[in-house]
This record gives sequence, structure tokens and C-alpha cells, in this order.
Amino acid sequence: MRCYSVWIFLGDSRMSDIVISTTDNSRLSLLLNWYANPYHTPIFMAHYLGFYEDEGLSPAIMETTDPSDVTDLIGQNKVDIALKAMIHTYAARAKGYKVVSTGTLFHEPPTGLIFLKSSGIKGFEDIRGKRIGYIGRFGKIIIDDLARRAGIELDAYETVRVGMNMTDAILQNQVDAGMGIGCFQQVELEQASGQETGILRVDELAGLGCCCFCSILFLVNEEYLAHNEDKVRRFMKATQRGVQWTLENPEKAYDLLCQNIPRLRTETFRKIYISCLPYFSRDLVNVERDWDKVGTYAQELGITDESMDAMSCYSNEYLPERPYADFQPLDGHYLSESRAAS
Amino acid sequence: MRCYSVWIFLGDSRMSDIVISTTDNSRLSLLLNWYANPYHTPIFMAHYLGFYEDEGLSPAIMETTDPSDVTDLIGQNKVDIALKAMIHTYAARAKGYKVVSTGTLFHEPPTGLIFLKSSGIKGFEDIRGKRIGYIGRFGKIIIDDLARRAGIELDAYETVRVGMNMTDAILQNQVDAGMGIGCFQQVELEQASGQETGILRVDELAGLGCCCFCSILFLVNEEYLAHNEDKVRRFMKATQRGVQWTLENPEKAYDLLCQNIPRLRTETFRKIYISCLPYFSRDLVNVERDWDKVGTYAQELGITDESMDAMSCYSNEYLPERPYADFQPLDGHYLSESRAAS
Repeated sequence: MRCYSVWIFLGDSRMSDIVISTTDNSRLSLLLNWYANPYHTPIFMAHYLGFYEDEGLSPAIMETTDPSDVTDLIGQNKVDIALKAMIHTYAARAKGYKVVSTGTLFHEPPTGLIFLKSSGIKGFEDIRGKRIGYIGRFGKIIIDDLARRAGIELDAYETVRVGMNMTDAILQNQVDAGMGIGCFQQVELEQASGQETGILRVDELAGLGCCCFCSILFLVNEEYLAHNEDKVRRFMKATQRGVQWTLENPEKAYDLLCQNIPRLRTETFRKIYISCLPYFSRDLVNVERDWDKVGTYAQELGITDESMDAMSCYSNEYLPERPYADFQPLDGHYLSESRAAS
Repeated sequence: MRCYSVWIFLGDSRMSDIVISTTDNSRLSLLLNWYANPYHTPIFMAHYLGFYEDEGLSPAIMETTDPSDVTDLIGQNKVDIALKAMIHTYAARAKGYKVVSTGTLFHEPPTGLIFLKSSGIKGFEDIRGKRIGYIGRFGKIIIDDLARRAGIELDAYETVRVGMNMTDAILQNQVDAGMGIGCFQQVELEQASGQETGILRVDELAGLGCCCFCSILFLVNEEYLAHNEDKVRRFMKATQRGVQWTLENPEKAYDLLCQNIPRLRTETFRKIYISCLPYFSRDLVNVERDWDKVGTYAQELGITDESMDAMSCYSNEYLPERPYADFQPLDGHYLSESRAAS
């Protein structure tokens, strides 16, 4: 009942196109890296619950119909903020796009080659003679690199670009396996097929030690950032509140998401949502270790060279000084700050 | 088999983020008025079949998560081209947004109050005591205007903003009826409920004589247009080819749409697609009579006043001189041109 009343309230006010603030009615355009899905929940919570509005922001959240478009659009400064993975951020910089990550939304989701067990795939060597689906250009580069590491000739398997439709491509027998995220496409494939599925994780196959190359980040263009530093800071603060609310109210958050985007109210998306919960970054921080690791990986993949400076790709200075808190500490200080000062 | 091979081709080339043209790799951002759905088919055909590419264009097609955002984004020149209805175009101009319609995608879709027959609604007077869903601000204005015409007090019914989720709101018992399009939401409601549905058409209730206020148009900002006239012209030409291909190959077009956006491969969306086919504008023309009629209606609704000049809201000069044709006429002339010259 609580959520229902929230929704009605949202219905009459939050979603209104009458902007309350009279000082700045400019919209902040935010482009998702995918169609709206459960791993975007913290952003939608910040939107529906008015956290962005509290910061004087009026975001317009858009979905992409082709994930490969997103890098160009943020790189050409045609949207204000966009979501994209860490590996794409390096690729964008290498292409000359001045994009910067100001935070992490989704941290190290398990990413790899996903398949039905009935395909007979057990190890990476089994891709011989198979058709392998990939999302965009870098998925193919990663597959070919893994094949090289495994000593598999490039003509021993076929690659097929499938965009956002990996699960469908497997079910339509257009590919035998495809690159995807364990807590998303693997769950989707299992639900849609009713069969057992498997995943060969890229981080394990490539010896990376983490799936940080696939962490999903908030990107801005340096040109936009130069004129909107405070706006980006307020955006990150409100988003942080959205993460916190999501993690403290996981079931209510999913209900509110589905009330606003009813196509997500399916058993499959509910399972995806639950599977995604562990991977939300709680502090939105860009992790230096990850950037270093993925920087090396990007060089190995030939996406960047040694001239690429990881430090140019991200900044944590737009994040709240500490994760959002409803309460001030009783003695006015945070332990971490006391320690830093001593 | 034909479509499958087309798709594979698209998979490897058309959807690539490697832009072939080296002269201009800037992306054209195109924001849909809704989530991607069957009435956008001509645009997606022009995209998938390379008609935009043939014109040297590289569109990035985005979906909105809130239809009310679209007017602001095109009005603030934050996207290059956007889809929005005729009534919104007047509202945008009245708000000071310098937007111009350069063509019509979807012409006079039947629009009205949609409901389950089991709700007991038979005529507009039956909204007394009911909860009526609307998409955005102007839907509410239209409902209240119809109530005024019918002599129904404004407090005799309740209005609830439901965004894109009218069908879901009815099924979740959050509203009793809602504003929507006959060939979309009514079909969806009938499929989802398995019950008989009804529609009270706004054009009939308001004595308009056509549902042109809801025709879906291609909008650009005057500022963008001033610097991109040729680009807009090429966009409209390629889109015209997309319409033509869709109408000449309706089943192939739906297959290709679903191969690229698999969530549309449902019986409901197939029925919506078939129901939408009659309403695609074949020549994309802005119809002067419609603009006049809707101009008067917008004044009656209090959205604009008599200072609004319909001619400032649209232009047909970016459309191809004649609808796209594969062949030149055998004698080098079109009858219409001969007649015009004589």
C-alpha cells in the first residue's frame, strides 16, 4: 500500500513536465547503456523519489536502441551523462573522445561466454565450429583474444554481432553461445529456455582476476564537465542516495521500478533484479586498481597503447565526500576523517 | 531465409560502430516519443536497411522513459530530431521552444478514452466517479475540456498521470479508463485482459473531425535546422524510403523489426503492428488543414492564443520533391509536375 501511494504521488507531481525550479529549467540528458533494466534501479529510484529534484536537477532518462551508439553520443557531447563500461571508456579515449568516468554504478558484474549446456560447450576450446554472439566491437576483440590465448585459429569459429539480443539469438538458433553478463543474460537465457546454462567467465579465461573491464560507469564529456562541475556533483550525490535507498529497500525498489516500467514486471526480470543486487557499487567510487588492471588489458587487446594515462579516464572528485547519510555523526566527526587528520 | 541473411549482414556491418564515411562521423541523435514500438517501424527499416547510411547519415535512435521529457529535449536543442504529436508542437511553441515539424510519421491515429467494457463505461458521462489515466499534461487538459463540454464537474472524476503505462494501470486497478491510441493501447488492453474493450474517440467527442492533434511528427529545433538543412532533407528522404519499404513489405518489415528488437516479437505487438499499418503517412507531408484545425483546438484548450501562427510550426520544404521512387518516369516527367507547369 505504501508503494502504491508513493506511485500516485509520483504520478501527479514527480513525473510532471512543469519544472518547479524557476531558476534553471534546463534538462539533464542521461543516456542508459542498454534498454532500461534492473541494474539501472538506483538511477530510477533517485528519479522517482525526487532525489535529483532535491538537487535542483531535472534528468531526462533515455534508452539506447544500440549500445554501440552510446560511446559516440557522449564522445561527441550530444548527451550530458551516459553509462558505459570501463573497457569502452578506454576505447573512447583512444578514439580521441574526451570522456571521463565520474563514478561506478555497477561493479564487476560477472561477464563471459554464456550458453545452454545442451550446446555441448564445456570449455573455451569448444567454440570450434560454433557461432559466437557478441554485443559490439569490443566483444569480438575479447573473443578473438581469448581464442588466441587458447591457441584456436580465428577461422575455427564464427562471430555474429547480436547487439542487445544475445538470449534471443541463441533461442532463434542464430548463435550457439554469446557474450553477456551472468546476472542478466544468463538468468534470462535460463528462464526463457527452461534449460541449464553455463558461463565461461572472461576474467578467469584471461587471468584478469576481476570483471572490472565490464563495470558500468557514469561518463561525461570534458567539455560538458568544464561548464557543469557542480551539476555533475549534485547528480552523483542524488544517485548515491538512489543506491542507498535501493539497497535498504530492495523489494520496494523493484515494485516502484515495475510500477513505472511495467514490462519489467516479469519473473525473469525479478530474478535478474535479485541477481544484480550484489553488484551495485555502494560508494560509486572509481577503483584505481581496476583502472590499472583494465588499462593493461586494453593494451593487450590493442585497444590502447602505453601512452594512455588511466588517470585521465576517471575522477572521484565529483562523488560526495562520504557516501550519503541521513544522519550526522553524534560527535560531529567521521572516524575516517579523524584518522585522516591524525 | 531472406530476412535472416539480411539480419546477418546488418549484424556484421550496419550496426557497426565503425563509421564508413570519413568526411563526417558525427552522429544524428533521434529521440523517439515512446519506447520503440511498431509505429516506429519505418524509421527502423530506414536504419537497418542502410537508407540513412546511403544519405551519409549515422543516426543514434534513443527511446524516452518519459514522453513528457521529449518536448523539453528538442525544445532545448539537446537532441537533433525528435518525434512528438501535433498538439505538443503547438504547446512547445507556446512555451517559447523554437521547434518545427519537418514531416508526419503517423497520421491521425484514432485517439480517445480506452476502457474495458466491464467497467460499465458506455458514454463520456460515465466518467463520473471514475479514475481516468492520462499520459502527460495535455492529456489531462483534453479530458477536462471534454468534461466541460459534457457538463461534468471537474471534481466528479479523478485524473491520474500514468505515462506510457495506461494498459498496466487499468490491469492493476489504478485507473478505470485511460487516454490512448486505438491501434496501440486498445489492442494491448484487449490482448492483456482477454476482455472486450471500448474507445470513445476524442475527435468525435470534441467535434474535431480528425485525430490530427495526435499525428506524430518529426520535430527539429530551429537552431539545429539553421545549420543542418541538408542533413534534415537527407533524413526525411531516407525515412520516406523506410515508409515505402515498410508498406511494400509489411511482413518482412515486422520480422526485421523483431530480429533487432526481440521484445516486440509477441502476439500483442504483432496485432498492434497490423493495426498501425493504415496510419503511416505515405508522403510524410504536414497537412495544412490539420494544422489549422489543431491550431483552433489548441486555442480552445487554452494551450495557445490567437497570436500563434500555424505556419511557424511546420515546413514541408525538407521532404523529397515527390515521394521516393526507384524509377524515373519513362518520359522524364511526373504528371503532377506537368499539370503544375501548364
